[in-house]
Amino acid sequence: MYLCSKDLEKFFNPKSIAFIGVSRSNLHFGGVSFMRKYLEAGYPGRLYPVNPKAEEILGVKAWPELTALPELPDLAMVAVAAPQVADVLQTCGQMGLRHVHILTSGFGEMGTDTGRRLEARLVHVADRYGMLLIGPNCMGTYRPASGLTAWGAIPGRPGPLGIISQSGGMTQRLTEYTDSLGLGVEKAVSVGNGTVLNAIDFLEAFGQDESVRVIGMYLESVSDGRRFLETAVHVGRRKPIVVFKGGETGPGARTAASHTGAMAGDRILFESAARQAHVTLVRTLDEWVDALLAFAFVPRPSSDAVFVIGGGGGNSVVYGDTCIREGLNVPALSQASMDLLCEIVPKAGSIAGNPLDLWETFTNTGSLIQVIDLAEADPAVSVSVVDRLIGRKAYHMPEGPDPTPEIIKGLKERNRKKPVVFVVDGEGGDPALAAQAASARSAFGAAGHAAYPTMARAARALARVCRYYEHLAPGNPPARSKETDGVWV
Amino acid sequence: MYLCSKDLEKFFNPKSIAFIGVSRSNLHFGGVSFMRKYLEAGYPGRLYPVNPKAEEILGVKAWPELTALPELPDLAMVAVAAPQVADVLQTCGQMGLRHVHILTSGFGEMGTDTGRRLEARLVHVADRYGMLLIGPNCMGTYRPASGLTAWGAIPGRPGPLGIISQSGGMTQRLTEYTDSLGLGVEKAVSVGNGTVLNAIDFLEAFGQDESVRVIGMYLESVSDGRRFLETAVHVGRRKPIVVFKGGETGPGARTAASHTGAMAGDRILFESAARQAHVTLVRTLDEWVDALLAFAFVPRPSSDAVFVIGGGGGNSVVYGDTCIREGLNVPALSQASMDLLCEIVPKAGSIAGNPLDLWETFTNTGSLIQVIDLAEADPAVSVSVVDRLIGRKAYHMPEGPDPTPEIIKGLKERNRKKPVVFVVDGEGGDPALAAQAASARSAFGAAGHAAYPTMARAARALARVCRYYEHLAPGNPPARSKETDGVWV
Repeated sequence: MYLCSKDLEKFFNPKSIAFIGVSRSNLHFGGVSFMRKYLEAGYPGRLYPVNPKAEEILGVKAWPELTALPELPDLAMVAVAAPQVADVLQTCGQMGLRHVHILTSGFGEMGTDTGRRLEARLVHVADRYGMLLIGPNCMGTYRPASGLTAWGAIPGRPGPLGIISQSGGMTQRLTEYTDSLGLGVEKAVSVGNGTVLNAIDFLEAFGQDESVRVIGMYLESVSDGRRFLETAVHVGRRKPIVVFKGGETGPGARTAASHTGAMAGDRILFESAARQAHVTLVRTLDEWVDALLAFAFVPRPSSDAVFVIGGGGGNSVVYGDTCIREGLNVPALSQASMDLLCEIVPKAGSIAGNPLDLWETFTNTGSLIQVIDLAEADPAVSVSVVDRLIGRKAYHMPEGPDPTPEIIKGLKERNRKKPVVFVVDGEGGDPALAAQAASARSAFGAAGHAAYPTMARAARALARVCRYYEHLAPGNPPARSKETDGVWV
Repeated sequence: MYLCSKDLEKFFNPKSIAFIGVSRSNLHFGGVSFMRKYLEAGYPGRLYPVNPKAEEILGVKAWPELTALPELPDLAMVAVAAPQVADVLQTCGQMGLRHVHILTSGFGEMGTDTGRRLEARLVHVADRYGMLLIGPNCMGTYRPASGLTAWGAIPGRPGPLGIISQSGGMTQRLTEYTDSLGLGVEKAVSVGNGTVLNAIDFLEAFGQDESVRVIGMYLESVSDGRRFLETAVHVGRRKPIVVFKGGETGPGARTAASHTGAMAGDRILFESAARQAHVTLVRTLDEWVDALLAFAFVPRPSSDAVFVIGGGGGNSVVYGDTCIREGLNVPALSQASMDLLCEIVPKAGSIAGNPLDLWETFTNTGSLIQVIDLAEADPAVSVSVVDRLIGRKAYHMPEGPDPTPEIIKGLKERNRKKPVVFVVDGEGGDPALAAQAASARSAFGAAGHAAYPTMARAARALARVCRYYEHLAPGNPPARSKETDGVWV
């Protein structure tokens, strides 16, 4: 279905929401837990709980039926039991309420005749009234700028991401995860069984949405391969699309069938289509977040030549390996850079070069900034990747205040053009170290710098950004290959 | 060189240590920082700082020269400037002091004639006196059970690991990392340039050391490929060897040459040899730790069939994919298991099967233990992998006390035979979440359960354990393939 921006408005910025299926007593996940979250998050619009047996729900006046509401709400959220959903939908249609989100599960994803029959009825009603339906079996929409944050990061941070997902849980975790790293969401939608509005509809809509700069999708199945490919090619020219595809293996696909009622598509076909459309494919939640972070925070680099700044001989060796393995280039520095480094890098116990093994960059912010400036001036490199070792006794390091604010300040003081990405390792089971590393990553993110827990994750994300922009280079526009033309229908 | 257990004794359990090259004023990394760490960590032996200009160093009586000491120390640690090291070594030799660790850098790893000449002199002196030399350019030995923890996790936890490394920094981080996860070290050694005692010598020695159950190695180069292969084949039959190989790419190898003065070996040859010896090869620090954790904590599983326990449809889909992709099997459960699950798993919104999507396992420990018992009884599965979602508002979950202690108690109450591995995700920039997840991983580890931050890392580590034991199966002993016989010399 073609969604115009006006259609999106009522889903992502509703002035009023009706809740059908809000119990007074059951405080578990469902209509009433959504409503409570809207209240807690300070949703600024009007909430209309519909419940014939209640005077009020969570302190908000309740209405005996949908038709009794004092206005036609922008959005209805339906959480009644599956067999009753079609009747509610029918009422919505008759009232002229076009925007409906169905939270209820128990439809096509059950794999039963009953489930399929109930789902077919929904589609039938929606068709009759020209309704825009999200669901069933999903979490619906999320937009921090509208105070629409019933799930995921709460209250949530507005930002450049547009998220489209066939998993509510994945979307919740994603928004929470990126939010913690200083990266916010413009619009997110969990589409569930995608009976009326599906992931491709939202991809098309987000493609035209100027507020969405980077698109992230979690997909288990694609209902129309050709349309997905065409839409992705079109949208992918304007903004990066990062797709996390689930259901690629036997057990994954088997579960996907029970999850959203859809058959997961053929992995090879999907990968081929994604490659043609210059979609970035990822395989885990972490890779998904890492890539989104890089696309959102790292300005287009002029090449994939990185300068790896850190300390420790072994680290330098494996960081060089890691960057190369993930598809980056770790070039020799220019003579001017090497001349400067040979002045400041101790001859024994450190290594002047790329990667740079200069322990002082861990303990002396001035020294780190000096090295970053060197990269800024060196035509051989395009991006700096800085390893930020948190000072600790295992390394005979003096304990001191967290240098992160000083580093961020130092980076802001001059207008540098080359991106700087950070690695802050706090892996393991030490809560204090984990918290310090998370804080530092969060602070770097809030200042607009992508920060990762490991070099491997930073390098993989950066390489994905480089590949995307290479494809967009003039003379090499994304195009559909003829080879799979006949196959992907 | 062949090391017998008596040779190891003085390196890993010295009753007295002489420090040659301890300044009174310079508090930076070096002899005096090592000595301070011994004092802080409560090293129970006798420390003899040697400094002709000092009465005492850090409150310990100083001695004007090595020959003035009141006893022949078990171990000498040399941290004087590179040109003076050979003279100190000569004195040690004359005194009959055979065990020496040279911290000083500035030898072969410099890539200069001077560096090479100084290194050759060391080897010459060591040969003359039959000395056992660790270094130069390294951190030496570490053993928590002896109070010998001048670096790495301090005070350090005794445990089953034997660590051999060509990078001091990597070894420091490794011991800190595994310690935080409840996994301790029996012996660790950083061999640096490996002039006299090298990584293979310690591999051989650790192979015979009954206290070492799992061996971890960080290697940049192997001086004698044939001996490495033969030793690894021999040792690998008795205990798992996990090798993290650095210097596999151009930039990595270039840096390795400056790091330990050795040319990194050919990647393909090395991988082929490692495969023959059933060595587990890893490519990042995290993979190294993850594999060591699995080898140390996971009892030999009867097969690679895992039961994935968690909640959320999307998670279940991608967890299935992840396990398959990493080389595990995610089989259908037995009919008896499915009958039970169909009773306890809600029909809508959850998925009975493998992976199991049962949200209640996150919030109800009794339910989780019930499911783990089901796996214990099901012949189709050998290992359970439990996703431990930390309760939080993004998921409409009630906040409550950390269930980790209750889960650990529940697992202890019955003597189950099948391993249970945990995933506790706290990734991102939220310090509270990161600290909670780290605490939980640490608690699981202290109770003997391997815990990982992501399913991908858990699955990869588990798959490595399964592959190792498959190779050891009767009728399929590790053997040297004829194909590369002539190549690897």
